[in-house]
Parts: sequence; structure tokens; C-alpha cells
Amino acid sequence: MEDSLPASIFDVETPCLLVDIDIVKKNCQTMIDRCKTMGVELRPHMKTHKTVEGAELMTNGTKRKIVVSTLDEAIFFADNGFEDILWGSPIVPGRISKRLINLCNKLEEFHVMVATLVGLEAILATPLNEGKKWSVFLEIDCGYGRTGCCWNSEEIISICEKIKQSNNMIFQGLYTHCGNSYSPDIETKNSIQQTTFDRLIDVKSKLSGLGLECKTVGCGSTPSCSKPIECLSNLTEMHPGNYIFYDYMQVLANSCDFEDIACKVATTVVDHKPEVQTLVVDCGWTAFGLDAPHDQFKDAPLGQAPIVDHPELRMFSMTQELGKLKAAEGEIDYSKYPLGSRLYLYPWHSCCTTCAHPFYYVHSGEKIVGKWRTTRGW
Amino acid sequence: MEDSLPASIFDVETPCLLVDIDIVKKNCQTMIDRCKTMGVELRPHMKTHKTVEGAELMTNGTKRKIVVSTLDEAIFFADNGFEDILWGSPIVPGRISKRLINLCNKLEEFHVMVATLVGLEAILATPLNEGKKWSVFLEIDCGYGRTGCCWNSEEIISICEKIKQSNNMIFQGLYTHCGNSYSPDIETKNSIQQTTFDRLIDVKSKLSGLGLECKTVGCGSTPSCSKPIECLSNLTEMHPGNYIFYDYMQVLANSCDFEDIACKVATTVVDHKPEVQTLVVDCGWTAFGLDAPHDQFKDAPLGQAPIVDHPELRMFSMTQELGKLKAAEGEIDYSKYPLGSRLYLYPWHSCCTTCAHPFYYVHSGEKIVGKWRTTRGW
Repeated sequence: MEDSLPASIFDVETPCLLVDIDIVKKNCQTMIDRCKTMGVELRPHMKTHKTVEGAELMTNGTKRKIVVSTLDEAIFFADNGFEDILWGSPIVPGRISKRLINLCNKLEEFHVMVATLVGLEAILATPLNEGKKWSVFLEIDCGYGRTGCCWNSEEIISICEKIKQSNNMIFQGLYTHCGNSYSPDIETKNSIQQTTFDRLIDVKSKLSGLGLECKTVGCGSTPSCSKPIECLSNLTEMHPGNYIFYDYMQVLANSCDFEDIACKVATTVVDHKPEVQTLVVDCGWTAFGLDAPHDQFKDAPLGQAPIVDHPELRMFSMTQELGKLKAAEGEIDYSKYPLGSRLYLYPWHSCCTTCAHPFYYVHSGEKIVGKWRTTRGW
Repeated sequence: MEDSLPASIFDVETPCLLVDIDIVKKNCQTMIDRCKTMGVELRPHMKTHKTVEGAELMTNGTKRKIVVSTLDEAIFFADNGFEDILWGSPIVPGRISKRLINLCNKLEEFHVMVATLVGLEAILATPLNEGKKWSVFLEIDCGYGRTGCCWNSEEIISICEKIKQSNNMIFQGLYTHCGNSYSPDIETKNSIQQTTFDRLIDVKSKLSGLGLECKTVGCGSTPSCSKPIECLSNLTEMHPGNYIFYDYMQVLANSCDFEDIACKVATTVVDHKPEVQTLVVDCGWTAFGLDAPHDQFKDAPLGQAPIVDHPELRMFSMTQELGKLKAAEGEIDYSKYPLGSRLYLYPWHSCCTTCAHPFYYVHSGEKIVGKWRTTRGW
């Protein structure tokens, strides 16, 4: 039974995550419309929100064609009626569990990803129910350097030969994540998109020349899919995820504006510490996460946790349950933030902040209209 | 109904947190014995593990006298039969919820903490059930600079006067957390312990001079309570928490040795990336947390996530579900870490790593003997 909801955003206990449903709907619809205009299918990623309600909005109510980051998410969405699910993390021998095999047998369309010949051989050696075949995406690393078979590696040839010889799998095509497209510089971002696309098409052509066709050529990150360059219209699908909520990092990556950020952490001022010139709030790393500006974003002008309507404050450190704020310049005027008053923090990286919360309070304007529960684990 | 357990630590799916029950029991018993020898009561902190099973071991089976970091934890332990619970986070007006009042009315002994006159006035203005009084600890900041009334502030006098005038509260005494005792240098650590103790006793004497007696004078952090200096025997209670599991930071703070660390994250090698000289594992920040060596520990020789039995590897970055390892020196010998093989990561800060996990697999030697479920939220 659902417990009763607080009436308004001012009635919630803190810390908690507030999700603005009107912004979420706008963000989801914009991406749906963009993909339609481009003629590219959208396979949204679930890792940022991990909720049934968010997934319904991202799939435009179809509950089909999603990508997930963990097997737990795959099972959660399958149990809630979703279909055409891709587990976007490479299979290796130790990851072929009973849970995975059950899911392959249960769903009409469940796809796994391989990045290595060893991973491919492991699934080919694992039988499914009669009439069932493994459905496989090949992950290509187009230069990001995280996971995936390197776009110019010899291993792609061996993988291709193995796929052609096999009779217990369906080859879907190519998947790549261009995480290197997170750049504050638009020209750099566009150039990375172009390079990623070119390399992906190069692999597609190479496989085609070897007699293996790709039904799908998919690519995506929230920065590239929020401001796609023209060539991406030649992809068959895109798979961004963060855009449901966006965050401060995406503002700096030119994916969105502050008013597109759909979630924030509500927190309460619990102590004034003039002797160390800090203000203490009840939001620590258990409620905010610890991802913070680094690499190309290290000089983020508002720091790790911009405070809504209070650019004069900076979060400078967090402990387990407390956050410490200082004045951006000069001294804090404590009279502006009485003990017990509320502040709201934009996430630096919403994927990291959301996963700290067992649920989100969903609001329209000031009114709380729902509570979304997340899945969790692996 | 409990689902069936994996037989051994080699049968678990990854990532997951493994807790060595034999080390946990030893760590708990050592602290119980130490406090007994010192003649100081132990009020263990629950924030590191957040489980009923861990709490039973830390309280030597009494299920009494604990401190918690969130109201959620307080309710969780109360619902599981625990008593004499202190919520160790300062009360301010916005934090006096129905849940808090219900808990005060329900438990024989539930204590709140105040750090400000505003917080004290807020509880004094809130009636409890007939016959019930608020039970209050005053939080003192002895120089750490997080929360608490500064040991030499004038506000202590006003708070003292207010307490003396009130008739709906029981004053318990003083509570301080010496988080600044986390130092790699033993002399620095001892000097901070001494200063903290001296300042705490100074406040106690000042209050006594004003006609207010402290039943309790409590202090504690895992570094100070694991290697206490003699004067701490004059406290009435200590409240460490992390020692149930310890971690790499505590090794560097001279609280323990590597063999005292009771938990580690099991992870699987999912990709070899010789083109960027990395090894990728399925443990990202959702499974490890992002707390990392900083300040006095920034040169931690083994980095953020020491790899059990593999000092030749270093974790150098994590994404949501993946960790990237490099060789500490030279090149990686990939043949030593086949795809699908397992690695085990010591947490840098176990409080941060544990809170990423919905449960822990508990083992004795190689055998899995239990599954501890954590509470979560605020």
C-alpha cells in the first residue's frame, strides 16, 4: 500500500530527491521528437532513473526498446512488462548466470553485448531453451577507451568469423558509447561525434565486406544526442539516458540549460559555524553522491553542487550525512539561511545522485504528485 | 522468505560486498574488551553497516546503547528491538517530524542531539506524550569544525541556562565526534585526542560551575577508540563505528592492519584494453562509492581501491558500473587476469562502499554463511 504523500515540496523531510514532472515530460518528448525528425530509432538508457514511470515516459508509453546498465535493471523492467531490452555491459564467462539465461528464455527480445571473442564464445557455448537463440550486439570502442572491441582491431575479424559460423545466435549489429563527447567545447564535441560515426560506419562496411550485415548501428550519449550533428541521421538508433533529468555537467557540456534540469536534492540547514565560516546542511554523500567536476570540467564555476537561487554559496565538502557550504566570496551572511531553512542542490551528475535515493518525490509546481521507487543492485 | 545462498565466495555474482564474519566478530569483541578494560561504556555507531546482525555483534547481544546517523536508522533499529538509541545529528526546527515524535514516545530511551539554542528551543516547544520528556545530548565541537556548539562559544552558556529552566527534557550530557583524529601521524592523532578530551572536560566543568551536571561525556572516532590514549579512560562513553569493518583509510590512520579489514568488493574482469593499457572490471562507483584519498591521505600508496593480493594494479577511474585498472608500474600482464576472472577490492572508506549495497554476503573462510540486509534512506 502506498503511504500518503506530502502535500507540497515544502512538506517533505530532507534530504530527498525532488523530480519536476513537467520538465521530465518535456525532456522526454523533445528527444522522442528529435529522433523521429532524424529518422533514427530511440533506445533510451534506464541507468539514470531506474524507475518504471521514467521508462514509460522515455519510451513514449510503448514499453519497448530500452538499454539497461545492470542485469538487475533488465529483470526489473522485464517484470514490469517491458520488452526489447539490451543489457549494455559486456558478457564474459563469469557473467552468464541462471538469472541471465532465465531472462533470455522469458523475453521475446532480450539482447546481450559482447566486446571480446572470449565473451562471444562463452555465450555460444551456453544453450538456451529450444527455439531460443542469443541476440547479440557487438560493442565497438570508437576511441572513448572504456569497454568495447577497438574499431581498428584485428579481433573484430575473428569475432565476425565466429558469428558467421554460429547457429544459436542472432546478430543485431553495433553498439558504441561515445562518453568522450562530454566536452565543454562544441567544436571538440562535434569532432568526436564525427569521428565516432566514421569509425562505426567503417566497422559496418568491413563486416559487410566479410559477409556479415548489421541490422542496427547505434551510438549515443546525452551530449551527442541532445545536439546531434547531421551525420548521426545515418545511424539506425541512438541510446542516450541522462537527458531525462540532465544535470550541471550537462549544462557545461552544452547539452541543456539550467531550466532543463529536472531533479534536485532538498536539504535543511542544520548548523551555522561562523568560527570556520561554514554553513552545514543535512545532505552528505549518501544523498548527493561524490561525483564532482574533473578533467575538462574541473573549473566548473559553481562547483560540485550549484545551489538553486544561491550562486553566492559553494559546496566545498561532504561527510556521510552532512554538506559544508562556504561563501563563494567573502563571508556568509547567516541571516539569509536560518537554521531549519531549506536549500536545493542541482546534481553535478544526476546518475550518481539518483542512485543514492530509494525513491523520488515527483512534483508539478509546488504540489507533490507522486513517488517513484527505484530498482537497485546488480 | 530468504532466497538460497551461493555456496561459496566463488559462486557469487559480481559486483557484491563480501563480509568476513570471523574478522567482524574479532573487531567487535576487541572493542568491547577494550572499553571494559578502560571502564568506559561503548555506544557503537551503526552508520557503517546499517544491519541488525552487525548491531547485535557490536552491542555484545544486548541490543542497547547505540548511535545512528539518520532517523531512518533509528526507526529500523527500534523496529528490530533495539533500545537506548541516540540520533547523532543536530535537531533544528525543520527536522522535528511526526516520525521523530512517534519514536520519542515509543522507546524507553531515545536521545536527540542539539548543537544550537535554536534547535533546543524547537524541541522544548514540542510536547511529547504525557509522562514523556525529551532526552538530549549537547553536541560539542572540540575543533573538528563540522557540527556542534564550539567548545569555547558563548552560546554554551545560553544553552545551559535554557536547559536548567526547562521541565520537559532530560539532559544527558556531552557528545563530540573527533573526525580530525584521522591522521597518518600517530603524534598528531594523540595530540588531537588530548586536545579534544581537554576541551570536552573544560565544557563539562563550565556547565557544572553553572549548576548543570553531565551524566555522560562521550567522544569517539574509530582512530581514537582503536588506539586510545590514557586520558580517554576518564570519559563515560565512546562511540566509534567504522571498526566493525575497518578499511584502507583506517590502515593508513594506524587504527588497524590490512588483515583487520572485514569487507571487500568482489568484481569480475570484463574487458582487456591493451590499446589504452587498462583492465576493466564490473565494479564502478555504484558498487564502490567515490570517496578517495584526499587531504592528509592524498598520497595513499595503493590508491583508492587496493586490490587484494595484487599490489601491482591500481584503480585509476570508475564510471557508473565499470572500474578501470592500470599497472602501478610498466605494462599490464593480461595473462594474469583472464576475462571472467575475479578480483577483490578493499574499500578506501567502508562507510561509503557499504551504503552502495542492498545486502552483504557474509562468509566464514570460503563458505557463504549469511546475507545481511541493510536499511537505507533518511
